[in-house]
Amino acid sequence: MAHMTSSRVRMSPDARREQLLELGVRLLGSRSLEDLSIEVLAEEAGISRGLLYHYFGGKQEFHVAVVRRAADDLFAVTAPDGVGTQLEQLAGSLERYVDYVAANYRGYVSLVRGAAGGSAELQEIYEQSRNALTDRLFDGAVAQEAAQLGLTDTPAVRLLVRGWAAFMEEVVVEWVRDDRGVSRDELLAHLAASLPGILAPLRP
Amino acid sequence: MAHMTSSRVRMSPDARREQLLELGVRLLGSRSLEDLSIEVLAEEAGISRGLLYHYFGGKQEFHVAVVRRAADDLFAVTAPDGVGTQLEQLAGSLERYVDYVAANYRGYVSLVRGAAGGSAELQEIYEQSRNALTDRLFDGAVAQEAAQLGLTDTPAVRLLVRGWAAFMEEVVVEWVRDDRGVSRDELLAHLAASLPGILAPLRP
Repeated sequence: MAHMTSSRVRMSPDARREQLLELGVRLLGSRSLEDLSIEVLAEEAGISRGLLYHYFGGKQEFHVAVVRRAADDLFAVTAPDGVGTQLEQLAGSLERYVDYVAANYRGYVSLVRGAAGGSAELQEIYEQSRNALTDRLFDGAVAQEAAQLGLTDTPAVRLLVRGWAAFMEEVVVEWVRDDRGVSRDELLAHLAASLPGILAPLRP
Repeated sequence: MAHMTSSRVRMSPDARREQLLELGVRLLGSRSLEDLSIEVLAEEAGISRGLLYHYFGGKQEFHVAVVRRAADDLFAVTAPDGVGTQLEQLAGSLERYVDYVAANYRGYVSLVRGAAGGSAELQEIYEQSRNALTDRLFDGAVAQEAAQLGLTDTPAVRLLVRGWAAFMEEVVVEWVRDDRGVSRDELLAHLAASLPGILAPLRP
């Protein structure tokens, strides 16, 4: 991998920190959080370990910052694009979600598996990320889907949609790990159909 | 909690080890794996730490043995009872699953969250446990449900059922943590309906 901009180029500390976070997230595409050390980042960025400790404070803080950035990226990349119906937008978000997980597999698994069993701070980021993704669904596709089914926003609906998020996570991670001959288009069709499938039995 | 049978009662080493594992699982009902130390077990069992190290070798081995036992218990308790149709049996299994998670909440969360991000050995137990539960479903309720829907046992069906297991895990853990006013009967009805809900869109 090409090294980043030489340190002789003047960058503000914030811009440099941003650039290092982006590199950290990119490195997570091919290695787990556990294997993402300050040393690895320093080598890839072509700057000293001391400077990295200066920017992030320590390995734990560095991991927290990288995982938070990855969660933000995921949130941004899966934002509805505003084109078409809510369900068409959901289909687009699902597509970008699948491609994001495929491109960032190791790091994404670190986020969902590692953070789930990891430090309190990583767990918190994971919870926030999942809640933010679910809440956004409620403002859009779920609200529309639920309304079409005659459902309102009840605790039972929220509980099942939370379960649906776990379903999605598991199916997509497993598919990326081993696609079992299921094509990307088939996968996307199954994922899109699963939300109404789970909600339909709630109809009054 | 009452202490176990005094160590003056003669028991075979295997029987004593079994008894200690059962105690370990019971203690996991109210504390996480991290908080289940050899010291806690020794105190509850009324025997020495040295003897516990003799039985289990160390803390890591003790945790692995307790988690394996908990996974076996879960598998046993959710076995179809052979009464009624496959789907009635699935409903019964779901009911016992929900009650098991409610009675063993902390330990169960340790199994599904902790093991997922934990040591390779704990991850392996978790994977095996989930696979065993899913495979048993395939021999019973899923096969019947799929046949009613005109589905055969394809990789896509297996993938979605794996996702359904994650859905179940998430919904039940969340419901036990905070039931949000959703009754146990409502929850069970939603869970039972979700499997055909997820599989139905796969119909040819």
